[in-house]
Amino acid sequence: MAKQKKAPRPKAQTPKGFRDYFGSEVTQRNDMLQKIAEVYHRYGFDALESAGVETVEALGKFLPDVDRPNEGVFAWQESDEDGAGDWLALRYDLTAPLARVYAQHRNDLPTPYRRYAMGPVWRNEKPGPGRYRQFYQCDADTVGAASVAADAEICALLADTLEQVGIPRGDYLIRVNNRKVLNGVLECMALDNVAQRDAVLRTIDKFDKVGEVGVRELLGKGRLDASGAYIDGVGLSQEQADPVVAFLTSGAGLLDATLTNLTSAVGGSVAGAEGVAELRQIAELLAAGGYGPDRIMIDPSVVRGLGYYTGPVYEAELTFEILDDKGRKRQFGSVAGGGRYDDLVKRFTGQAVPATGVSIGVDRLLAALREKGRADKAAQGPVVVTVMDRDRMADYQTMVTELRQAGIRAEVYLGNPKNFGNQLKYADKRAAPVAVIEGADEQAQGVVQIKDLILGSRLAADASLEEWKERPSQYTVPRTELVTRVKEILDLYK
Amino acid sequence: MAKQKKAPRPKAQTPKGFRDYFGSEVTQRNDMLQKIAEVYHRYGFDALESAGVETVEALGKFLPDVDRPNEGVFAWQESDEDGAGDWLALRYDLTAPLARVYAQHRNDLPTPYRRYAMGPVWRNEKPGPGRYRQFYQCDADTVGAASVAADAEICALLADTLEQVGIPRGDYLIRVNNRKVLNGVLECMALDNVAQRDAVLRTIDKFDKVGEVGVRELLGKGRLDASGAYIDGVGLSQEQADPVVAFLTSGAGLLDATLTNLTSAVGGSVAGAEGVAELRQIAELLAAGGYGPDRIMIDPSVVRGLGYYTGPVYEAELTFEILDDKGRKRQFGSVAGGGRYDDLVKRFTGQAVPATGVSIGVDRLLAALREKGRADKAAQGPVVVTVMDRDRMADYQTMVTELRQAGIRAEVYLGNPKNFGNQLKYADKRAAPVAVIEGADEQAQGVVQIKDLILGSRLAADASLEEWKERPSQYTVPRTELVTRVKEILDLYK
Repeated sequence: MAKQKKAPRPKAQTPKGFRDYFGSEVTQRNDMLQKIAEVYHRYGFDALESAGVETVEALGKFLPDVDRPNEGVFAWQESDEDGAGDWLALRYDLTAPLARVYAQHRNDLPTPYRRYAMGPVWRNEKPGPGRYRQFYQCDADTVGAASVAADAEICALLADTLEQVGIPRGDYLIRVNNRKVLNGVLECMALDNVAQRDAVLRTIDKFDKVGEVGVRELLGKGRLDASGAYIDGVGLSQEQADPVVAFLTSGAGLLDATLTNLTSAVGGSVAGAEGVAELRQIAELLAAGGYGPDRIMIDPSVVRGLGYYTGPVYEAELTFEILDDKGRKRQFGSVAGGGRYDDLVKRFTGQAVPATGVSIGVDRLLAALREKGRADKAAQGPVVVTVMDRDRMADYQTMVTELRQAGIRAEVYLGNPKNFGNQLKYADKRAAPVAVIEGADEQAQGVVQIKDLILGSRLAADASLEEWKERPSQYTVPRTELVTRVKEILDLYK
Repeated sequence: MAKQKKAPRPKAQTPKGFRDYFGSEVTQRNDMLQKIAEVYHRYGFDALESAGVETVEALGKFLPDVDRPNEGVFAWQESDEDGAGDWLALRYDLTAPLARVYAQHRNDLPTPYRRYAMGPVWRNEKPGPGRYRQFYQCDADTVGAASVAADAEICALLADTLEQVGIPRGDYLIRVNNRKVLNGVLECMALDNVAQRDAVLRTIDKFDKVGEVGVRELLGKGRLDASGAYIDGVGLSQEQADPVVAFLTSGAGLLDATLTNLTSAVGGSVAGAEGVAELRQIAELLAAGGYGPDRIMIDPSVVRGLGYYTGPVYEAELTFEILDDKGRKRQFGSVAGGGRYDDLVKRFTGQAVPATGVSIGVDRLLAALREKGRADKAAQGPVVVTVMDRDRMADYQTMVTELRQAGIRAEVYLGNPKNFGNQLKYADKRAAPVAVIEGADEQAQGVVQIKDLILGSRLAADASLEEWKERPSQYTVPRTELVTRVKEILDLYK
């Protein structure tokens, strides 16, 4: 008989751009999200959890003529009876599902509707270092409130949230700007066409990088970038560029001065004046709640998202310094941002519904907490009860049960117990703080040995062979005192 | 110019078989999962979170010749440079990803590896009432431990978990069986072929429904089912059927009697004897930890999953009674199950690795907790500060901030304040316990009105119009006492 060809073994790999999270990577994130949820809840926001899967139609991608509308999203077609079902896709953010949910359930939901959502989203993009195709988002939005009191509330919420998870006051700053002010500025500029307007918007987005002089050059004739390439300018006159520069640089530390600068930057524009008034109102509402400019400030240099949002925009930055790859100090930077977008459900219902909301960069914020030593400590490994005599597994199991019932994380060694060295290697890999050993001799004497593995490894690192051999980190205790004595050691390393 | 045809509005709907979860539906589940995670962690299990997306290859579906291998899973093909990338799919359970993770990271993971995982899984199946295409699973597995001590540990873990989330002792029972005992029984039966063996396995799976007499009929000539249809039997003789019936009915309440019955059911089979010895060992290990047969018992009538698993199987049932759709009493039933499956990573590495684990039916267990009134109460609505004068939003915002800083869930009304009735309707929809009102008069006098909405709605239900008009549920308090007096009301309804 011919030998059958074996199927090749499958590769044990995550798809490109996806990853696994282990142990404290999971629990630290969950702890942080739970603290955030507490603040959101206290502010009156309600939890919402929609499915990971939406129709492509609801997500707002256009069904193209080509086979798969999966540019940017992971999408597939349902097979129904006729072989041509709906196109479904994984959500790419939490805002598009909110729009669908609000349109679908608007008769049952309160108006305004404050909701928070946390969960994974998916992007069908080229992955890069630290850039994954599945990641967490954590959003709070208020739907159906036209008043900028809703925007001010989200800013206060963001400040309280950052403090709740462990970013101390002084280490963060929430900066607020307003798209309407920018609209006023654009009005003053007497631009020729939409293309020019878009070019101005793109230039404004570069302010963070190129500064005032760079923006002036880019709005005018152009500029040599760092790589030596020449970037064409928008071609505006110096006078046309003035309002943009005035807008971007109008931050003056003091609120009144900033607002005066802005008022002059928007000239006679009605929209612009409205935008300035909104910023004043936001600042007043926040001041009334005790949120001063040390925490939340009006700052026209916040440009991220100005093209996308329709009213106030806000961004939370962490101001403490970290070292970058090359050992240079830099500010940690942005961890959350958001703003007002006023056509959330119009696609579905034809009715414009105002909304404003914030999205926290979960991984960025978690990285910041780790940087500051504010993430809950990596979970301590379990106490490992070793197995000297495999026929007495029930005795070891009893020890473990006693420890667990005292609230101590503990486990019995469940591998092959033959090689005792392997058991200690296992305890090491588990970052076990304590190992418990009970052979026949110990059992006969009614004692157990407990081994302080943390002290042990310190001795191993620092002590001479002679000192090591004495192993003062291991000692004998009465079996009846097992739980108490283990607890003593754990308390030392809390 | 011709009028442009408008694109039709998208439907605001979840895809078929998916749903949204609101408010306490989300938070109650999260609270339950967190309590479960605490127990898992105390037992030494480490969190693992893999992505929702895996390669179809890793999930173990065969790539068919047809276009899409999405039978049972949601799958799609990656478009790479050549237009023919990997097939990806949403995970359909948490076990297949565990196999992939363990094979991929086995050099870095401890052996044995205890891990827990919680999260959504997706099934591309026809949805039905209460049956969704995305739902939560919550698993704990031990990989790399051949000893049945690992199975015993999972049973103890399951008992502790049920008690931790709020199922009292006496309201649950974990029943344990062993596939090896069944293998011994099958050995004794002198079956002709594999088809007959499979038919016997299928019959055993019906024992729960048809009982001893039914199983005898189905193993023999056949039987009339409830609908009057005749079901063909396996065609065994009475004598051949005896060991199966002996096996299924060998539970005797007392462990020793059960094991004696099982020993006789497996006759001279070596595998069968090994299976009985394992059950004895599990019972002894559990007894040593204080887990008696009132919580975990050996019970050969547990048949679910016997075909799939390779060793011990276990199932957790809730034994309290509920009323079914027709008002009849019945036991709540199964909320978790699992067992030993010994070829977890062999597909990937060629090496057999033993594993055992349990999966909790998250939605079933949550339903049970709600049934018993053990789920955390539906989150109370927020205190609503109404807006009598829209120019004084900052004052109302200040009240809300004071309330929140005292830990009270509170919000200011952010809708259009013109119609005060709408504000009270909103408070009602939010299930607000208290509304706060401060008009110009109140402000001048330094007071606010607080309205006990819970008392108010009770009065509205029971009181006459005259009593209602007096509105004793609404009263005036000094502005400085706002937080204290609101807290008094909230404490009444805790």
